[in-house]
Amino acid sequence: MISRLLNPSSVAVVGAANDRGKLRGKLLALLIQAGFEGAVYPVNPGANEIQGLPAYPDLTAVPGPVDLVLIAVPGGQVPTVLDQAVQIGAGAAVIFSSGVPDISGYADRIRIMGPNTEGFYCPESRLAATFAQVVEHSLERDEAPPAAPRPLTIISQSGGLGFALYGRALAENLDVRSVITTGNEGDLECLDFVEHCVDQASPAVILLFIEGLKTPARLAEVAAKARAAGSSIVALKVGRSEAGQRAALSHTAHLAGADTAYDASFERAGVIRVHDLEESLAVAAALSRLPASPGQRVAIVTTSGGAGAWAADLCSAAGLEIPPLTEALQAEILPLIPSYGAAGNPVDVTAAAVEDGGKSLVQVVERLVASDEVDGVLVNMGLAAKGRVAALRPVLEPLLRASRKPIVFHSHILPSRENLTALAQAGSHGFSTLRAAALGLAALAKDGERLRRAPVVARSADRRPMIAAADGVLGEAETGNLLRAYDLPFPQSILAADADQCVAAAARIGGPVAMKIQSVDLPHKTEAGGVFLGVTAEDVRSTFERIIANARAYAPDARIEGVLVQQMARPGREVAVGMVRDPDFGPLVMLGAGGVYIEVLKDVVFAPAPIDRAEAMRLIMSLKTVPILKGVRGAPPGDLEALAELISRVGDLALCEAAIEQIDLNPVVVYPAGEGVMAVDALVSGKSSGAEPRH
Amino acid sequence: MISRLLNPSSVAVVGAANDRGKLRGKLLALLIQAGFEGAVYPVNPGANEIQGLPAYPDLTAVPGPVDLVLIAVPGGQVPTVLDQAVQIGAGAAVIFSSGVPDISGYADRIRIMGPNTEGFYCPESRLAATFAQVVEHSLERDEAPPAAPRPLTIISQSGGLGFALYGRALAENLDVRSVITTGNEGDLECLDFVEHCVDQASPAVILLFIEGLKTPARLAEVAAKARAAGSSIVALKVGRSEAGQRAALSHTAHLAGADTAYDASFERAGVIRVHDLEESLAVAAALSRLPASPGQRVAIVTTSGGAGAWAADLCSAAGLEIPPLTEALQAEILPLIPSYGAAGNPVDVTAAAVEDGGKSLVQVVERLVASDEVDGVLVNMGLAAKGRVAALRPVLEPLLRASRKPIVFHSHILPSRENLTALAQAGSHGFSTLRAAALGLAALAKDGERLRRAPVVARSADRRPMIAAADGVLGEAETGNLLRAYDLPFPQSILAADADQCVAAAARIGGPVAMKIQSVDLPHKTEAGGVFLGVTAEDVRSTFERIIANARAYAPDARIEGVLVQQMARPGREVAVGMVRDPDFGPLVMLGAGGVYIEVLKDVVFAPAPIDRAEAMRLIMSLKTVPILKGVRGAPPGDLEALAELISRVGDLALCEAAIEQIDLNPVVVYPAGEGVMAVDALVSGKSSGAEPRH
Repeated sequence: MISRLLNPSSVAVVGAANDRGKLRGKLLALLIQAGFEGAVYPVNPGANEIQGLPAYPDLTAVPGPVDLVLIAVPGGQVPTVLDQAVQIGAGAAVIFSSGVPDISGYADRIRIMGPNTEGFYCPESRLAATFAQVVEHSLERDEAPPAAPRPLTIISQSGGLGFALYGRALAENLDVRSVITTGNEGDLECLDFVEHCVDQASPAVILLFIEGLKTPARLAEVAAKARAAGSSIVALKVGRSEAGQRAALSHTAHLAGADTAYDASFERAGVIRVHDLEESLAVAAALSRLPASPGQRVAIVTTSGGAGAWAADLCSAAGLEIPPLTEALQAEILPLIPSYGAAGNPVDVTAAAVEDGGKSLVQVVERLVASDEVDGVLVNMGLAAKGRVAALRPVLEPLLRASRKPIVFHSHILPSRENLTALAQAGSHGFSTLRAAALGLAALAKDGERLRRAPVVARSADRRPMIAAADGVLGEAETGNLLRAYDLPFPQSILAADADQCVAAAARIGGPVAMKIQSVDLPHKTEAGGVFLGVTAEDVRSTFERIIANARAYAPDARIEGVLVQQMARPGREVAVGMVRDPDFGPLVMLGAGGVYIEVLKDVVFAPAPIDRAEAMRLIMSLKTVPILKGVRGAPPGDLEALAELISRVGDLALCEAAIEQIDLNPVVVYPAGEGVMAVDALVSGKSSGAEPRH
Repeated sequence: MISRLLNPSSVAVVGAANDRGKLRGKLLALLIQAGFEGAVYPVNPGANEIQGLPAYPDLTAVPGPVDLVLIAVPGGQVPTVLDQAVQIGAGAAVIFSSGVPDISGYADRIRIMGPNTEGFYCPESRLAATFAQVVEHSLERDEAPPAAPRPLTIISQSGGLGFALYGRALAENLDVRSVITTGNEGDLECLDFVEHCVDQASPAVILLFIEGLKTPARLAEVAAKARAAGSSIVALKVGRSEAGQRAALSHTAHLAGADTAYDASFERAGVIRVHDLEESLAVAAALSRLPASPGQRVAIVTTSGGAGAWAADLCSAAGLEIPPLTEALQAEILPLIPSYGAAGNPVDVTAAAVEDGGKSLVQVVERLVASDEVDGVLVNMGLAAKGRVAALRPVLEPLLRASRKPIVFHSHILPSRENLTALAQAGSHGFSTLRAAALGLAALAKDGERLRRAPVVARSADRRPMIAAADGVLGEAETGNLLRAYDLPFPQSILAADADQCVAAAARIGGPVAMKIQSVDLPHKTEAGGVFLGVTAEDVRSTFERIIANARAYAPDARIEGVLVQQMARPGREVAVGMVRDPDFGPLVMLGAGGVYIEVLKDVVFAPAPIDRAEAMRLIMSLKTVPILKGVRGAPPGDLEALAELISRVGDLALCEAAIEQIDLNPVVVYPAGEGVMAVDALVSGKSSGAEPRH
């Protein structure tokens, strides 16, 4: 159905008008101007002819079959038009109107883009179903940007921003195949168009601008399909900041959603998230025109020493490495550059290198990509002089076409369009700023890493749940049983109803124990004076009496189940591990720094379940405080393998135990390598719980 | 002398040639083309006429007085030309040549720019002393960018980048008054030109591109002069990353310098540091065209909801606040916008707001700047349509001229130059990206904060030093005396030569004590088994014997001065405070997070001495882990006043005690407010020390 929308044989424009200065006139005018080759039927009861075409009073009066109906009438009239569209067998409609009543009931009869959309534009099929001014500008351009290996599709919920991005992308010489804006998504949502784009024969790069997804749960599947088809998705999602979320909420019906859940889901799905315009266009350009990179190591080749140092700073800031080159590789390069150049990386080939037509510069780049010391090359040179790239092209293009590592260009001097176009034709991309070049290369490295990364495999998804239903916070004993059932290391603990049972339990466990009040009415045990640690055998009995007395004094009506006698964990380095069930994306497993650092440093990472060992290890390595876990100042390395296993099992538990809403293991003590980990304290809660997560 | 260089009455071009495609021909051609009104004398022994002007065989043959000599001859011939220039009384020279012998000896007779420079260009005085191609382009432009309240001067060590920045700035419609490139700085350095620029009558914005300063110690003075003159300095310094430093070192004679020392010195001097091109131009534009901002609170006004949310994200990322507006202010705004808009902040005025000519949009902005809820306004609207700003100007310009808070514009649609120019003429600036707008506003807030900040006052700079000379690490007793002399809280300690003295010392101090071996030959006391903590009275004697035995076993030849008996400090939150004497910038005081976090999180900040209480407090507040010091999870606030005092006194010590090269107080224990701080361990070393700082 979407192909009847995007590739129709005939189009009716309901509400078409003569005045091209107004939206309804512009719509028809652009449709005609773009050169759509099928039948076009203006529909308007007030005219017999509009913009030179015969007009019809309503859809039923149109003489031929209609694939697509463009609707630009007041919102209240839209259902009548849709009824007629269904009646004449139209496959799809684009509703530009706002203030439209609920149209979800039409979805099984006709597929709808909008309402409140700016429509779409496909230069290739010469179909402009939009009133966006930028389309007129693009039609007036002399020549289209050079074709890219993976052309760009822009899909945006915001019409204004979708077409603004299109104009910006054209200015950057990007090969844009279509711009699609989905508006309020009364029927079709942006993921439908992503899927449609991926289903087309050839690989593409999809730049997505969203405030939130209508059906977040579909993201993983659609993204996997994209990956299988060789396409990449770049997402610009607003609502990262609190103020941005407030704005997104007030602006659209979409729930902005927990931004961290989107972050985690994008990461898992292989979607590259971007944040500003320069980054968006840089990443789109790089992915569109260049091969994914085998790694993070970049060689910088520059005709200006100052620009080389600056490039190194910005590549480092983008997370890339600029390794010093080996002496062997430098020895290959030095004969190609003047004596006052430098071969260390940055490689300063000096301005002289382009004066010979650039042959030596190309030879230097050739040596670099042939080596196994770098994964990509950034060339900085002036791209303002007329014919500069054209002169280089005979030697440059074979190198670019053969290279499986990205080779990108930047010009510190404002580059000319002629040179940028020539670079694109030769198979590279010229970036206008060093930050853009660095972010583009970093995205190619990330895309490469994601393509190589094995898909996460779930291990025990069909296990039978232990907890059928959970009302609020689980008792400590129940919690212990649950965790141990999933092989999560948890201190041995025994629920004791009286002082004698406490003494017996302590004896069985051995050594000093922890003693904790157990009551559903006392979620904050410590405040109630209900927790004692390191209790030795001779103090167990008196401690029991003390706990009960404290609890009675704190909350006389609390129902007390007993006192939990628990093995004391040895001290060690601490982290927090948890799980929250996101309403949109399902269970997200959390890993955070220990103690107060999780909140002070916001040192916390999330990933959707399931989580295998590799993915758990990736989470661990992405903590800011991971050096502590690895061991600093002579401390032995922590048992990261055991921690990864624990994280992975929390994911298994979350998938099997649908009744569990939230898990908070804090602290999890990490012992030296080989000695395991221990979840010392745990808070597990079910659906109806109002409990706040503890830190 | 610099004014004879930048504003000469007559110019001789030594090495001038006819071929305008080559550097030496281009130099003369641009000088003529730019319209310099004084006398121009080509000098070249091989021609009688060059580019239509009479040519002279050497400088002594020139018939009139010469202010400025441009030198474009092979490097080896430069001294001969300089001799002649001195002989005829020329005031200044620009040396474009590279490979020039040392010219520092000429400085008292003639002032020199270069060698290895691309020269300078002052559009206002129509003087082009450069071969940079971009000057030709700028001369071909129809009109200059509108004048700014504080026009821009670009000063760059790199010629290529200086003129590249000029071209970029022109494309952004910035009002550039001069471009100066200093090259290898054989004589004049970029700070000379900064000072000259500041000495001119009117305030300016100076954009500095440097790899390192020739005379770093001058920065503070020059920057203070700039501040007093109402000028601002924006610095783009390369060498932030390790690879960038490597490149800068290989590229120029400048020592890249410790980047953190530059950071601290820029911060103290009120210089705003920038890192990439978008940021550089955004900050330069904002400071050049708009008033400094009274604070960080920004209102976003947008005609597109999606762009509003995005703007909020990017303003937040730039460190700005986007406060929700009060109900009272919203009530003022709501009548001005359509019912489907939003007044929360972002204020979504909807596309309808520009359809009435923008009057209502301007009224909304007026209400916002008049309120005391925001310190600046970012307006997002389409700036592509012809005449959009011109139509707004009658209502907009009075508002902009009257406002003491910055009001800036952004267009999500690619803006037209016509609209950007009209905005600049009306007294604002239109940014092409939201990130640029956010960074521009953030710089205005920072500039405002720096203008309001009181200068740091030194307290005790003329105190007589206690330590005349220090060879290596100071002994613990000497260290204690030094610290106590500067009122730095340090545990009471007594040096004991034998077991009896130890026992007496412990009794005098009271409570458990620390005991530490004292030997210049044992800098690593712990490894030598020479440190025991919490020693109780009855164990003091045996511990003394143990320490001596351990030390003898570890290093039989070590000279042992005795054992230090020291008061044990109560535990508390920990930080590290220190001082390093930077060879360029002088003493820098360091504050870092406690324990391993200083290295794991790189949570460390520096500031040059002196440091007053306010500055010390600013340092404390800029630590990532400051929430811990302030008190999290119910912990009482730490004694930040006492910590600030300690930091300030370390600065005093550093200024008075020139023989002390490095101080490391680690840990400094911070007790709850009112209970003070204590430097528990200290390492102080003098000039010749090879000791590494401890963490």
